[in-house]
Amino acid sequence: MSTHDASTDRPTSPVGPRDSSRTPRFAGPASFALLPLLETVGTADIAVAGVPFDSGVSYRPGARFGPAHVRESSRLLRPYNPAQDIAPFAVQQVADAGDIVANPFDLDEAMEQVYQGAAELLTRAPRLAVIGGDHTIAYPLLRAAAEKHGPVAVLHADAHLDTWDTYFGAPLTHGTPFRRASEDGFIDLTASAHLGIRGPLYGKGDLDDDARLGFQITTTEFIEEHGVSAAISRMKQRLAGKPVYISVDIDVLDPAHAPGTGTPEAGGLTSRELLRIIRAMSDQNIVGVDVVEVAPAYDHAQLTGIAAAHVLYELLSAMGAGPASG
Amino acid sequence: MSTHDASTDRPTSPVGPRDSSRTPRFAGPASFALLPLLETVGTADIAVAGVPFDSGVSYRPGARFGPAHVRESSRLLRPYNPAQDIAPFAVQQVADAGDIVANPFDLDEAMEQVYQGAAELLTRAPRLAVIGGDHTIAYPLLRAAAEKHGPVAVLHADAHLDTWDTYFGAPLTHGTPFRRASEDGFIDLTASAHLGIRGPLYGKGDLDDDARLGFQITTTEFIEEHGVSAAISRMKQRLAGKPVYISVDIDVLDPAHAPGTGTPEAGGLTSRELLRIIRAMSDQNIVGVDVVEVAPAYDHAQLTGIAAAHVLYELLSAMGAGPASG
Amino acid sequence: MSTHDASTDRPTSPVGPRDSSRTPRFAGPASFALLPLLETVGTADIAVAGVPFDSGVSYRPGARFGPAHVRESSRLLRPYNPAQDIAPFAVQQVADAGDIVANPFDLDEAMEQVYQGAAELLTRAPRLAVIGGDHTIAYPLLRAAAEKHGPVAVLHADAHLDTWDTYFGAPLTHGTPFRRASEDGFIDLTASAHLGIRGPLYGKGDLDDDARLGFQITTTEFIEEHGVSAAISRMKQRLAGKPVYISVDIDVLDPAHAPGTGTPEAGGLTSRELLRIIRAMSDQNIVGVDVVEVAPAYDHAQLTGIAAAHVLYELLSAMGAGPASG
Amino acid sequence: MSTHDASTDRPTSPVGPRDSSRTPRFAGPASFALLPLLETVGTADIAVAGVPFDSGVSYRPGARFGPAHVRESSRLLRPYNPAQDIAPFAVQQVADAGDIVANPFDLDEAMEQVYQGAAELLTRAPRLAVIGGDHTIAYPLLRAAAEKHGPVAVLHADAHLDTWDTYFGAPLTHGTPFRRASEDGFIDLTASAHLGIRGPLYGKGDLDDDARLGFQITTTEFIEEHGVSAAISRMKQRLAGKPVYISVDIDVLDPAHAPGTGTPEAGGLTSRELLRIIRAMSDQNIVGVDVVEVAPAYDHAQLTGIAAAHVLYELLSAMGAGPASG
Amino acid sequence: MSTHDASTDRPTSPVGPRDSSRTPRFAGPASFALLPLLETVGTADIAVAGVPFDSGVSYRPGARFGPAHVRESSRLLRPYNPAQDIAPFAVQQVADAGDIVANPFDLDEAMEQVYQGAAELLTRAPRLAVIGGDHTIAYPLLRAAAEKHGPVAVLHADAHLDTWDTYFGAPLTHGTPFRRASEDGFIDLTASAHLGIRGPLYGKGDLDDDARLGFQITTTEFIEEHGVSAAISRMKQRLAGKPVYISVDIDVLDPAHAPGTGTPEAGGLTSRELLRIIRAMSDQNIVGVDVVEVAPAYDHAQLTGIAAAHVLYELLSAMGAGPASG
Amino acid sequence: MSTHDASTDRPTSPVGPRDSSRTPRFAGPASFALLPLLETVGTADIAVAGVPFDSGVSYRPGARFGPAHVRESSRLLRPYNPAQDIAPFAVQQVADAGDIVANPFDLDEAMEQVYQGAAELLTRAPRLAVIGGDHTIAYPLLRAAAEKHGPVAVLHADAHLDTWDTYFGAPLTHGTPFRRASEDGFIDLTASAHLGIRGPLYGKGDLDDDARLGFQITTTEFIEEHGVSAAISRMKQRLAGKPVYISVDIDVLDPAHAPGTGTPEAGGLTSRELLRIIRAMSDQNIVGVDVVEVAPAYDHAQLTGIAAAHVLYELLSAMGAGPASG
Repeated sequence: MSTHDASTDRPTSPVGPRDSSRTPRFAGPASFALLPLLETVGTADIAVAGVPFDSGVSYRPGARFGPAHVRESSRLLRPYNPAQDIAPFAVQQVADAGDIVANPFDLDEAMEQVYQGAAELLTRAPRLAVIGGDHTIAYPLLRAAAEKHGPVAVLHADAHLDTWDTYFGAPLTHGTPFRRASEDGFIDLTASAHLGIRGPLYGKGDLDDDARLGFQITTTEFIEEHGVSAAISRMKQRLAGKPVYISVDIDVLDPAHAPGTGTPEAGGLTSRELLRIIRAMSDQNIVGVDVVEVAPAYDHAQLTGIAAAHVLYELLSAMGAGPASG
Repeated sequence: MSTHDASTDRPTSPVGPRDSSRTPRFAGPASFALLPLLETVGTADIAVAGVPFDSGVSYRPGARFGPAHVRESSRLLRPYNPAQDIAPFAVQQVADAGDIVANPFDLDEAMEQVYQGAAELLTRAPRLAVIGGDHTIAYPLLRAAAEKHGPVAVLHADAHLDTWDTYFGAPLTHGTPFRRASEDGFIDLTASAHLGIRGPLYGKGDLDDDARLGFQITTTEFIEEHGVSAAISRMKQRLAGKPVYISVDIDVLDPAHAPGTGTPEAGGLTSRELLRIIRAMSDQNIVGVDVVEVAPAYDHAQLTGIAAAHVLYELLSAMGAGPASG
Repeated sequence: MSTHDASTDRPTSPVGPRDSSRTPRFAGPASFALLPLLETVGTADIAVAGVPFDSGVSYRPGARFGPAHVRESSRLLRPYNPAQDIAPFAVQQVADAGDIVANPFDLDEAMEQVYQGAAELLTRAPRLAVIGGDHTIAYPLLRAAAEKHGPVAVLHADAHLDTWDTYFGAPLTHGTPFRRASEDGFIDLTASAHLGIRGPLYGKGDLDDDARLGFQITTTEFIEEHGVSAAISRMKQRLAGKPVYISVDIDVLDPAHAPGTGTPEAGGLTSRELLRIIRAMSDQNIVGVDVVEVAPAYDHAQLTGIAAAHVLYELLSAMGAGPASG
Repeated sequence: MSTHDASTDRPTSPVGPRDSSRTPRFAGPASFALLPLLETVGTADIAVAGVPFDSGVSYRPGARFGPAHVRESSRLLRPYNPAQDIAPFAVQQVADAGDIVANPFDLDEAMEQVYQGAAELLTRAPRLAVIGGDHTIAYPLLRAAAEKHGPVAVLHADAHLDTWDTYFGAPLTHGTPFRRASEDGFIDLTASAHLGIRGPLYGKGDLDDDARLGFQITTTEFIEEHGVSAAISRMKQRLAGKPVYISVDIDVLDPAHAPGTGTPEAGGLTSRELLRIIRAMSDQNIVGVDVVEVAPAYDHAQLTGIAAAHVLYELLSAMGAGPASG
Repeated sequence: MSTHDASTDRPTSPVGPRDSSRTPRFAGPASFALLPLLETVGTADIAVAGVPFDSGVSYRPGARFGPAHVRESSRLLRPYNPAQDIAPFAVQQVADAGDIVANPFDLDEAMEQVYQGAAELLTRAPRLAVIGGDHTIAYPLLRAAAEKHGPVAVLHADAHLDTWDTYFGAPLTHGTPFRRASEDGFIDLTASAHLGIRGPLYGKGDLDDDARLGFQITTTEFIEEHGVSAAISRMKQRLAGKPVYISVDIDVLDPAHAPGTGTPEAGGLTSRELLRIIRAMSDQNIVGVDVVEVAPAYDHAQLTGIAAAHVLYELLSAMGAGPASG
Repeated sequence: MSTHDASTDRPTSPVGPRDSSRTPRFAGPASFALLPLLETVGTADIAVAGVPFDSGVSYRPGARFGPAHVRESSRLLRPYNPAQDIAPFAVQQVADAGDIVANPFDLDEAMEQVYQGAAELLTRAPRLAVIGGDHTIAYPLLRAAAEKHGPVAVLHADAHLDTWDTYFGAPLTHGTPFRRASEDGFIDLTASAHLGIRGPLYGKGDLDDDARLGFQITTTEFIEEHGVSAAISRMKQRLAGKPVYISVDIDVLDPAHAPGTGTPEAGGLTSRELLRIIRAMSDQNIVGVDVVEVAPAYDHAQLTGIAAAHVLYELLSAMGAGPASG
C-alpha cells in the first residue's frame, strides 16, 4: 500500500493496477489495464485518456465507442512487460483520466474541446496516452503537445497518409490532421515519418503533397521485401533524437488483425510486427502517443480491441524506458 | 414489354421488377425490390431514394450504410402483395432514384442538400419513398413535402418522440426533426400522431413539450394492453383524412426484430404488428414516406434490413391502394 | 438398463436419452436430444433422420448443415414434456438414424436417394421425423409416406406456398415440392392446409394455382387478427381425421425467431405460437414430420437451431400422444 | 448540484445520472444507467451491484461478463419512466456499488463471499438490485434478504424451475438455488411464484418436488392462452402483500429477445410482456431484486443486455413507486 | 468529362470511378471500385463481371452472393496504385459489366451460360476480370479465353489442386475445373502453375495426377521456408512469357485473412504476400483473371471481401502495366 | 475393406475415415476427421479423446464446447498429408474415443476423472491425442503419460507460461498445470520447453519461477527476430531425444488466427508457423499430445476450430512418422 506525498499530491510510489489475485480480471470497472483513476492519484507521469469522437470519419463510423472497447479489452494486461524488461506501471505513475468530451455535431467545437481537455490534463500529467476516436483528434492533440514541447517529430503508423487537403470542403477530418498540423507548425517536418502506408491513393499527387510536407514513408511493401529491421533503422534515423509523438491508426494492421476499424486496407502489418517496432522505439524521447480508429461494431471477439490495448501497453512501456521518463 | 409514351417520357404501362424467373434474385445490382432505375424510366409515380447520412445520431452511428443494406435485403420482395390484394409496381410506376448525396461533415449543408435533392426528385415523381439514413433527414423531407402539399399530417412510428429541443447546442439532430418541422409549419399539428413510443425520457416535461406541439401518442404499452385494432382506430381518427406523411424509425420495432439500429429500446412492436398497422393506412392519402435508422453494422442475417424492406414495400402498396394514387 | 427382446430386435422398454446427470449435456456426440442411435436399438417407433441437402434452394443456401446444427442445438431437450404431459421417449422408442445421403450435384438422383433412404428406414421404424435440408426433400418424403399410408393430409407450416410450378426450368426445387406431390397423388387434397403464409407473391395467380391444388390457407394476417385458437380450429376441421404429415419450414417463424434460414420473410409466427399449434395437433394421427430450411451460417447463438429442435421435440410428443402411437 | 447532509453521509437530494446533455451517453465509464457510484454518495436507498460469477452453470458459461455487459447496455436509460410515471433516480437515491467479488474456483467460498458482500452492502443501502452472474447467486442473496426481512415471497421469472436437487453431486448450482433457499427458510413458501416456466423437464416428479416447495407456476403456455392480465392477477394474489424478492433469469424471455444466455428455451416471453408484468408489481413491497444469466458471448448488438438493463430499470422504478420506498 | 468517339463507341479517354470528393464512397450503387457500367461506356479494355453461381461446391455453399459482396467491399479502392505506380482505370478503360446469369439447378446448363456470357462479353472487351461464384466457373471462362488466345498458361492461386477427377459422379464441380480444362486443351500444360497449395489430400495419387496434367506446384510450405521471392522466380520461369490466365481462389489466403470461403484450410498466405506476388506478374501478358470462392455468409466485417477486392484491383493494375495492355 | 484380427481385437489394417466420395463431408456425425469410433475398432494405436471441461479458466470460459467444435471443424481433413508425405490414418490405427467425462462443479473430482479416463483409454490405445477443454487438463494427462513412460519432455506451445503457483487459492487451474506436474515429477525438467510465450506477466519473478522449474523459453519475439528455423533447432536440442509430450494451447496463435480462446494475447504465431514447427517434430518420439483452450463462443466461421483441427492432424501425422510409431 502506498503512502501519500502531500507535496506532489500523489502517492510516494506509483499505484499500480487492481490486484487481480484478489479480484478476478473480469470483475469491477474497466479502467485501462485496471489502473487507478487520475482523480484518485491526483497527478501522474502519464495520463491515459479516451476521446470518444468519430464525426470526422469518411467511411465506417463507430470509433466513438473505441475508448470503452479498448478499456474492456485491456483487462488481461499484466504489470510486467518481459519484452522490454520493464514494469511500466511501477517505474512511472500511469493513471486513467477518463474521457475528454467532444461535441459530436460540431467538428470545430469538438476540436477545441479536445485541445482544451488535453491542455488541462497536461497540467496534471506531463505526457498523454490517448485512445480514440477517429484520427481527426490527432490535430488538437498535436497542438497541445507542440505547445509544451515545440514542433514534435511524428511517427505515424497508418495505412493512409492522412495528409489530404479537404473532404467535402471540410478542412479537418480524419483524412487531413497531419496536413493541418504541418501547416500550423505542430510537427517537425525534418524528422517525421509514416509507417505502414499501403493501398490505393487518389493520385500520384498525394505522394507529392505528402513529400512536400516532409514525411518519410515506409510502406508495407518495403517491410514485405526488406523486413522489419530495415524499417526500424530508417525510421529511427529519421526521428533523429527529437521529441517524438507516436500516432497509431489501428488500420496500420492488416484487417485480419484489426477488422474493427473504419477504412480497412488489405495487406497490412501483423500485430507482432507492430509491437516489435514500438519496442524498438524505447530509446526515443516519446512525449505523447495515441491509438485511434478502433470501431467496435466491426470487431469480433475483441480482436481489434486486444491489439489496440497491447499496442498502448507497449507504448507506455517504451515511454517508461525512454529518456523522457523520470 | 412496355412501349414508351413520348408525352410523359415514360413507358405506357409501369415497368416492374427484373424478371426473377430468368435472373436469380441474388444476381445483378440491388435496386430496391429489383425495380428499374428512375433514369431508365424517366419519370415515375413514386421515386424510391436513399439518403446515406448519419451525422445527426446521438448514440450508435452507421445508418449511412442503411440505403445499400435495405436494397440488398429487398431482393426477395415479389410483385404481388396478397395482404393488400395489390400489385404495387403494376398499378403505379415505382422506380429507384438512387441516393441523394449529403455532406457528412456539415449538418446544415447536408440538410439543404437533402431538401434540394428531394425537391428536384419531386419534379420527376410526385411522391417519394425514402430510405435513411438517420432521422434528421425527416426535416428536409417534410419541408419538401409541405411545399407541395401544405402542412402534412404526420404518422410517426418510433420508439422516441424526436421532438426534443437541442442536443449539444445543435438545433437539428436525429432527436429533434419533428420539433423543428412543427415550428417551421411543415406539419399539421391538428392531425399528427406518434406510434410505438416507449422507454425512458429525460423528464415528464418531454411529454408536455410534445403535447404542446400537438402530437397524439400511442405507446407500446397501449398496444400491449388494448391491442392493435384499438391503436389503428385512434390513429386514423387523428389523421382525419388529411394528406399523410408516414415516417418509420425502424427502432419502433423491438430490438429482437430490428437489432441493427442506433438507439434501441426494449419492449417494441413486432414486425407483424407494424405491417398490419401500415396496411390499415391504405385508405389514407399518403403523400410521402420514409424508413430510417437502419444501421447495418449492428444487424444480423439482414434481420433489420428485411423488416425495413418489407415495411417500405407495404407502404408502397398502401400508396398504390390509396386515394392519392392514380 | 433395458433388456433386449429378440423377437423385435429391440429393447423391451424404450431406451431414452443419455443420462445427463452423469454426462454433462455438452459432452459426447450430439444425436438428436441425446437419443440412442437406431443402429444401437435396432428398430424404433420413430426414426429421426437428417437429410443434409440444399441444392434445391433459390436464394440463400446452407441448409446442408442443418441436421448437424439442429442436433447440436437439441442437447438441452429433457425427457418429460409438461406442456403435453408426456414423456415422448418413454411411451415410444425414438432413435436417431443418422443422415440420408444425397448427391449435392444432381437434383434428380438426390431425390431418388432420399426416397430410397426413407423407404429403407420405414422398414425399421414405421414413422419418420426428418431434419432438413431444404424443402425440396418433402417430395420424396411424401412419396415414401404415401406408399405406406396412401395420400396424406398435409399440414404445411411455411411462409411460402411452395406450390410454384418451375424455377429456371427445374420441375423440383424448394419452391415446388407440394405441387409435384399433389400432381403425383401423394397428398390428400381434400384435407391439406398451409399455415403461416405471408409475404409477397409473383402474382394473384399463385393463389389460384394453390387453391386448385386444394390447400386451405391460414395466413399470419389471419392469426394477427383472429388469434391462434381460431387458426387451430379451422386447420383441424380441414385435416378431418385423416393421416397427417406435418412439414415445418422454419421460415414460418419470424426472422427474429429464426434468422438462420434461406428465404426469410418479415411478419411471421413466434416460436411460442408455433409450439402451441403443434401441441394442439396431438389428437391427430401424425404419420410423418419434417423440419426443414435451417441454414446455420445465418443463425446466431443457435436461435434457429433451438427453435427447430424444440419444434421437432413437440412434434415427437404429439406423435407419442396421438392415436397412431402404440 | 446537491448539497451534502452530514447526518446521513449522503447528499440531501438524490444524485442522479451523469448529465447526458453535456457528456454524450457513449462517453465516460459505464456505471448502471450512468448513476453515481455508491462510494461517491456514501449511502443509498438502493445499491446496484454486480456479481460476476458463473461457476454454477450446467451448460453455456459466460455470465461472469454479465455485469459489465449490462452496464454498457444501460447507457441509453434516461431518468424519467413514463410507463410508471416516476423518476426512479429522483424519488430515491440509487447508486452503483460496483461488483461483489467471488472466487471462480470454489463454489462454497464464492457463495459465502456473495453473502458477505451483500450483507455488507445492506448496511449502506437497505435494498439491493443485483446483476448476475448465474442463478446460483440467488441463494446467498436470498439469505441476506431473509436475515433482514424474514422469509420473503419470491417472484421468480425464469424458463426453468431452478428447484432441482443436485447436479453431479453439487448441492448448489444454477439449477438448485430456490430448493436450497426453501430448505433453509429464506423463502415464504405460502407466497412464492414462478413466472414463464416452459420447456422439457427431467420428469413429472420435477413438478411434484416444486409443488411441495410451495411455488405457484405460471407457464408461458398459460400466458399464450389466457393473456398477461390473467397472469398478473394470479401472481399478485399469490404474493399476498408480503415482502417480495423478484429474481429474473433473463432466459424467461424468448431466445429471440435474449439470445445471450446460458440455457435458452424456445417459446418464451417477449420483453414487452415482461416489462408490463414488472410494472404491475409497483404496488408490491419489493425488498430486493436480481437480473441474472446474461452471457454476453452469445449476445448480439446488446440485444440481451438492453433487455436486461431495461428490466432492471423497470424494477427500480417499481421499487421507487412501491410501499417500501421512502 | 470525356467526349465520345463514334468509331469505337467509347469515350476518347477512359471514364474512371465516380468522383468520391462529391459523392461519399458509401453512397450510390456499388459497381466494382465505383467504376462506370459497361452499358454506359459501350466497350472497354477490360470488363469486370460477376458470376453468382455456387452449385458446384462440395462443402460450404454461398459464393453466389460473392459478386455483390466483393463489389460492396470495393468502395474504398481509389484510382492510383502506388505499389505498381499505375492508375489502372486511366491507362485503360475498365467497366463493370454486371453479372453473367447461370441456372442454379443445372450444372451443365450453367456452364454453357457462363461460357456464352463470357464469349459475348469478349466481343465488347478483349479481357475479362471475373468475380465468382465458386471455382467451377473457371472451366467455361478458360474455354472462352482459349478460343481467343489458344491454350493459356494458368497461374492458379488456391489451397487446393482442383484437378480431381469427379465428385459423386459429377465431372464438373469446383474441385475439377483445371482437370477438365486440361483435357479439353484450354490450358498450356507446359507453362502452368499452382500457388499456395496446402492441406491434406485424398492420397499421394492426387499429386501424381496433377503432375501428369503438367502443373508446377508452389506450396505454402515452400513459401514458409524459402520466401516469397523464390516463389515468384520459379513461377515466372514456368509461365515462360506465354499468355497468362490468373485464377485466384480466395482460400489461397489463410482463414485469418479470408474466413468467408467454402473450404478453408489453415496455414495459408497472408494478403500482403498474395498482393506482392500479383504485383510481380505485371510484366506478364495477362489475358484474363478471376477471383472466386468468396462466401459472404462466413465473412466478418468484409474481411474476405476487402481482400478479394484488393486482389482484383492489383490484377487490374498488373493488366494495365503489362505487355497485353494498349 | 479391412478384415478383423481376433488376436488384437482390431482390423488387420487400419480403418480410415468415412469415404467422402460417397457421403458428403457435411453429412453424418462429426467424429474427428470422420475417423471410426474406438468402440467400433476395439483398440487403436492412437485414441483421440475430448475433455469438455473449462472450470479451471480465469477469464473467458467456454472451452467445454471445444471438443464438439473441433470435431465439427475437422470434417475437411483428408487422409493424406503431403507436407509430411504420410497417410496418418493408414500407417497407424487412429480412432475417436469420444469424450472423457468430468464434473464441472468440482475441480478435484474432475482432475481425478480425467486421469482415470485417460488411464483407462491407455489400456486400449498406447497414445492419446486429446482435445480440450481448458489447460488444467494437462495435469491429469501428464500424470497418466508419466505413469506409462516416466517423466516426459514437454513441448508446451502457449502464449502463457502456465507455471503460476495459485489463483484465488486454487492450486490447480489453467494457469498452473505445468508447475504442479513439475512438482509431482511428471515432467523431465532437463528437456522441456515453452514455445510462443509472449505478453505481460505479473512480475519478473514469473520468469525466475519458470526457470527454476527447468523450462527453456522460446518467445514470439525470438521468432520474429531470428525466424522459425532457429526456434526449431533450439527446441529440438532441448528435447534431447526423450519421450515427448506436446501440449498446444491454441492461444499460441495470434488472435487473428485463433479468436476463439479464453485468454488471447496479441502478437502470436501464424497457423502456418505452428504447423511447420509441428512437422519438424516428426523425428521425435511423441508419446502424447493435447490441443486445448478452443472456446467456440468467441470463434468465427470455425477459424479457431479449423486451426486446432489441422494442428491435431499434423501432430497425428508426426506421431505416425516418428520412432514411437509401429
